This record gives sequence, C-alpha cells and structure tokens, in this order.
Amino acid sequence: MVITFSSDFGTADPYTAIVKGVILSINPKAKIIDLSHELTTHDIRRAAFFVASACPVYPVGTIHLCVVDPGVGSNRKPMLLVTEKGIYVGPDNGLFSLIWQNSKHKTAYWLKNSRYFFKDTSRTFDARDVFGPTAAYLSLGVAPEEFGSVVRSINLLRLPEPAGQATRRGRHFNGEIIYIDRFGNLVTNFAYEMVQGKNAEVKLGSRKMKGLVPNYGSIPKGQIAHILGSLGYLEIAGNAVSAQRLLKAKIGTKVDLELL
Amino acid sequence: MVITFSSDFGTADPYTAIVKGVILSINPKAKIIDLSHELTTHDIRRAAFFVASACPVYPVGTIHLCVVDPGVGSNRKPMLLVTEKGIYVGPDNGLFSLIWQNSKHKTAYWLKNSRYFFKDTSRTFDARDVFGPTAAYLSLGVAPEEFGSVVRSINLLRLPEPAGQATRRGRHFNGEIIYIDRFGNLVTNFAYEMVQGKNAEVKLGSRKMKGLVPNYGSIPKGQIAHILGSLGYLEIAGNAVSAQRLLKAKIGTKVDLELL
Amino acid sequence: MVITFSSDFGTADPYTAIVKGVILSINPKAKIIDLSHELTTHDIRRAAFFVASACPVYPVGTIHLCVVDPGVGSNRKPMLLVTEKGIYVGPDNGLFSLIWQNSKHKTAYWLKNSRYFFKDTSRTFDARDVFGPTAAYLSLGVAPEEFGSVVRSINLLRLPEPAGQATRRGRHFNGEIIYIDRFGNLVTNFAYEMVQGKNAEVKLGSRKMKGLVPNYGSIPKGQIAHILGSLGYLEIAGNAVSAQRLLKAKIGTKVDLELL
Repeated sequence: MVITFSSDFGTADPYTAIVKGVILSINPKAKIIDLSHELTTHDIRRAAFFVASACPVYPVGTIHLCVVDPGVGSNRKPMLLVTEKGIYVGPDNGLFSLIWQNSKHKTAYWLKNSRYFFKDTSRTFDARDVFGPTAAYLSLGVAPEEFGSVVRSINLLRLPEPAGQATRRGRHFNGEIIYIDRFGNLVTNFAYEMVQGKNAEVKLGSRKMKGLVPNYGSIPKGQIAHILGSLGYLEIAGNAVSAQRLLKAKIGTKVDLELL
Repeated sequence: MVITFSSDFGTADPYTAIVKGVILSINPKAKIIDLSHELTTHDIRRAAFFVASACPVYPVGTIHLCVVDPGVGSNRKPMLLVTEKGIYVGPDNGLFSLIWQNSKHKTAYWLKNSRYFFKDTSRTFDARDVFGPTAAYLSLGVAPEEFGSVVRSINLLRLPEPAGQATRRGRHFNGEIIYIDRFGNLVTNFAYEMVQGKNAEVKLGSRKMKGLVPNYGSIPKGQIAHILGSLGYLEIAGNAVSAQRLLKAKIGTKVDLELL
Repeated sequence: MVITFSSDFGTADPYTAIVKGVILSINPKAKIIDLSHELTTHDIRRAAFFVASACPVYPVGTIHLCVVDPGVGSNRKPMLLVTEKGIYVGPDNGLFSLIWQNSKHKTAYWLKNSRYFFKDTSRTFDARDVFGPTAAYLSLGVAPEEFGSVVRSINLLRLPEPAGQATRRGRHFNGEIIYIDRFGNLVTNFAYEMVQGKNAEVKLGSRKMKGLVPNYGSIPKGQIAHILGSLGYLEIAGNAVSAQRLLKAKIGTKVDLELL
C-alpha cells in the first residue's frame, strides 16, 4: 500500500528520516513515496494548495501523510480524512481545506486512540508519534474508525474566490495570485472553466495582456503572457524570464480578468 | 520495473509529486527512484552531463524519465530512446546528446500516440501528460514502437572536445571546464584515457599544477590539485577548499593540459 | 531488505544517483530509502548526530549506508559496523561515534575484500566503489565477516558532555548547543532523563528561562522557551521565531542548567 509523505521538515535534519523509520518499523512493506519535504516552513496555505494539486492524482485508496504543523502539541486536532479518492492524515489546521471542498464524500476522524501512537513522551513531534503511526496502521488495514470518533467539520482556510460583475464589454472579474512556483509562474484563482475557449484580457498592475497563449514555448523570449497553466488555473508566465520578478508580484497581488 | 526520474522541477512545487502520481495511477507496482529534482533550471547542458553520468550505471532495461524542458509545448519532439543499456523518455532538446553518442545501439521514437497520453487539456506539462505516462506504460510492457514512429536523428548539443597539438616537450591540449559540482570540483573535458598513467601538467589561468594526485585526501589542506575524478574526467579539486572559488572558474573556462 | 542512504552529496550532482544505481545493479530488489542527501558538507559531527537520531528508529537488521567523507581515499578505513539494531556502512571517521556509544553489542569490520568492490579505477568515490556495493551485497545476504577482518576500536569524535556541580539551590550544569535544526531550535546536550519531571532553569548568555513548556504551541508567539525536544534532549525553541536568530547561538554556545 502506498503512503505518500509531504512535509516542511526538509531533509537536513533527522525529522523526515525518523518518521519514515517509524512507518517502516510498523509496516516494513509500506511503500513510502516522498512528495516533498521542501514545503515552505509553516505556510499552511501554500501546503494546502500543494496537497490539493498533487494527492488526488494518486490511485484511489492511497494514504497521504501531510505535515505542515506550526501548532504541533497545541489544541489543534490530529486528524484523519477519508475521501472518495484518498485518505489524508495530518493536523486539522486548514491543510486539508481544498481537499475537503473538492471531495464529494468525506469523513473526518479525530485521532485519539493512543493504542496507535508511537510513544507518549514528547508533545513536539506528532508526525513521529501520531501521524506516521496512523498512516502505517492504515496501510496494514486498520479501519479509520479505530483511530477515533467522527468529527462533523474541520478547520477551513478562507481561500480567495474571484468576484465578478458585468461590464460594457463583457464580464469583469477581480482575482489574485494564489501560488507562485519555482519558475516564477504566477497562478491566479481563475479556474480553467472560466477562461477556456474565451477571449480573455488580463491586467496585473499597469501590465495588460491580451490573448491566451497555448504554452510557454509560444511566449516570445523574455516576455510574459497568460496561459492555461498545468495546475488548473490561469497563469501569468514568462519565457526564459520570471514573471514574478518582472512584475514584482506576490501571493495576494490583485489580478483583473475581462472576458470579452 | 524500475523507473528513474530526473528533473529540474524541485519539490517545493507539486509538479514532481504529480508526475509520480500519474505513473503510479497507471502502474501501481512501478518502482520509482528519484535521481534528482534539483537539476539546474532549464540548463540542458548540465542535465545532459548528469543523465550520462548516472543513468548508465542502472541495470539494463531500466526506464529513465528525464525532464529539463524549457521548450515544453513548442515544436520540440517528445521522445523515447532505446539503447543497449537503458530506455530514455523526455524531450528531444539535446538532453540525451551524450547518451546518444555513448551508445552503440540506439533507436529513437517520436511520442505521438495520444492513446498513451494522460489528458490533452494542457500544453504546458508534458512530464505529466506525455513523458510520465510513457514511462509508466513502458514499465507495463508496452513496446516502444507502440508510442510512435522511429526518427533517424535527434537533437545533439555541440559539446566541447579538447583540441591537441604536438609540442617540444610532448603534447599540448586545449580543453575547458564542462561541469562544476557542489564541492566546487572542476570537471574538465580531458577523459581518463588521455591522462591515466602519464605525467601531466595542467594550467588554468595563471595557475599551474604538476603531478596528478590519487585522491582528495592527498591534496594538502587548503590547496588544489588535479586528480582523476569520479566521473571519468580529469578534475581540478581542492581539499577543504572550493577549487571553483579559489580559481574563479566557470563552465567554459579554458584549461591547458600538457602530457610530458 | 531495506537500505537507508544518508549523505552530503546533494542531488544536483550525479553522485547520489550513481550510488543508488550501483546498489540496484547488484541487487535489483533492494529497497533504498533516502534519509538525506542534504547533510552539511563535510560536517562529520552534525552527521553523527543525524545518524544516531534517525537510523535506530528503523527495523532491526536495516542496512544504513552513511557517507560524509571529507577524507575519501586517504588512510581512514572504510567500515562496516554491526549492532543489535542495525548495520552501518561508511567511513571510519567519527560518523558512527554516537551509534557506537549507544549500542550494547557491536562489531566493526574493515572493508578490505576487493571482491565486493565496484571497480578499482578511482580513489575519489568510495560511496560508489566500496560502501554502496557493500550495502548491496549485505542486502543479498553476504555475511559481514566476508568483507574484511574485525577491528577492535573505531574513531570516535570527542562529543561534549555536560559537567555538573552542587549549588546552594540544587545542582548546576554546564552544557552547550550540539545541534540546530532548520526551524532554529537549539538542541542542548542535556538529555531528557536529567530534566524530566524536574524544575529547571536554563540560561544562555544573558537570557534566563524558567519552567519547561510542554510543546511549541504553548510558547507565546514571538517568544522562546525550553522544552523537551523531539530528539531526546532539552531544546531552546521559539514559536514563530527562530531561537537561533533571536539568541545568536551557534554550535558550541554555552548553556547553563540549574535543577532546583
């Protein structure tokens, strides 16, 4: 059974290695797939986007261990979330907001059964003591309800949604940058379906862009353009140049979209 | 069946995780080995060196998924390259130049059969839509010719070769730095066979070095020397010091070799 | 059979990928678990702490390939260390100091049998030529004594131990920072057992901290406190702030502990 593992632990410290060791000591046959240990430290919003983009691609029933957990040891709940696609284990701090919103069937459990905990000495490393063991026991076939009782709702981040209004020319939407990748591509919160097949104009600050381009290669070198990006949203991207640096954009920078 | 995966995607963004998910959703038994996701962004030359150094070490028949692809979505071909040692999947942009040159038997295919593509919505993420699925279906036993037709030649980078001439003292060669590693070791384009067992003098800028040393440990602390490096070439290396920083060398910096 | 792999090779260069390829070419069924390739370059002390924190968590009999090896090719011995928990392969340069000290049963072997070496051309890449192959052959069931003869002692780092003396109020100890993690948490050399259940006061420079807190979440935001950290030692940690940056602490910075 596959267990994916995403965290902000990095690998220079022993934390990631310890969690994988705990999983393998419980289930030596577990197949652990590292998704990332380079998530931005304590950035739950970015991690929520990562998890929602990557995990649903995996086979149905995959166990996803996800830990970005600045409040470890506080009263935020350790959680298990079963959806029609995958099973998620991690802190109830908003990390699973998008998974929750995008799933039709979902049941959340509060991890309380200390029988499945690794040990009880530390209150600072739930990935080792609670989340890792839960993922491992799930991979051995322990049923979700064994770990604790169902909870009705989970903590959800307030994620920005674009606001729209009719204009003389068509429809105008206010959106923003919700993600920036290592290439400097700016991911907006305008989903594919809003834009696909339409004539769209995009404005960021004083920069106006007309006409979607189909791929990075058709952007002239050193230029930027908007594009249907690979994560399901309209992106502002550069060719051999970072759109982020060129436009000095940040998470939350406003973007205007006009559908003509 | 082993699938190795090398890219410049990093792991802070979801791209690498998505590609691995696509592979596992096609072949849940695939054994994915991450070689690197920290290849220098869009640096095809460096990636070609990486691929040629690492992949041929793997067992015969291993599938190597390699993606450094600044021209994704443009008219560069998605490619499959079968050699006597391994099977390579990635963009035809020069990435496989050294593999092509070093292989005796090789057949290249243009990936055109959309039956094996993941989906067709995006033109910006061929690793997910074309290369990953191809690697996965290959690991399930689909024959190379199923993916597309044979192409006669592939794009090759012009890689520098050392030029030699007779001198009064012996033979003199003009070469250059082709790779620099994280320790600051400078890899030249003088292959082992040119130097091994010979009395060699190396000059970089005003710095002259005499006498090959057998290993890093025999370089005096804080000093540099030339050495038969681990990648098959003459290297200029330091002990507890970066040769790169000391000599202010770059890729392409000229190096002179005199065999006495 | 699981082989864990820890190194300071990074993954931008081909070294890590080559070693994994060598292992798989000897034992295609080996299950390689990457623990870290981001160990600090040539920092044996930090690596020794990493290895001792992570490896013993793995199942009994796991093979641990550990390479931080600034003296590669010099006269430091290539080594195999069998303990009651795991089997360690790497250079005898102090890397296994803590494992040696923490193990009840241990036998060290000097890797001399070139029959199990990959090739003999280079003296600069023992991870590929000696350590990797040894780990691979061990995973195939080759007995430790096949690789070389037993050695009585291994190289041990001098690791700091806290010094104590009675005070009017209780007992006073001089310790120091032995590890700093990516979150800036400062790990001292005061082990759990010294502190647990006691009233402890900690002083670093002019900063005095009273009263252990149970977890990071109970530290007021922007503040620091001492805590029983996840690695078995007293830590000085911050909440949403780096204790390292706040206190300008380094490895070796003195810390005073008073048990009242």
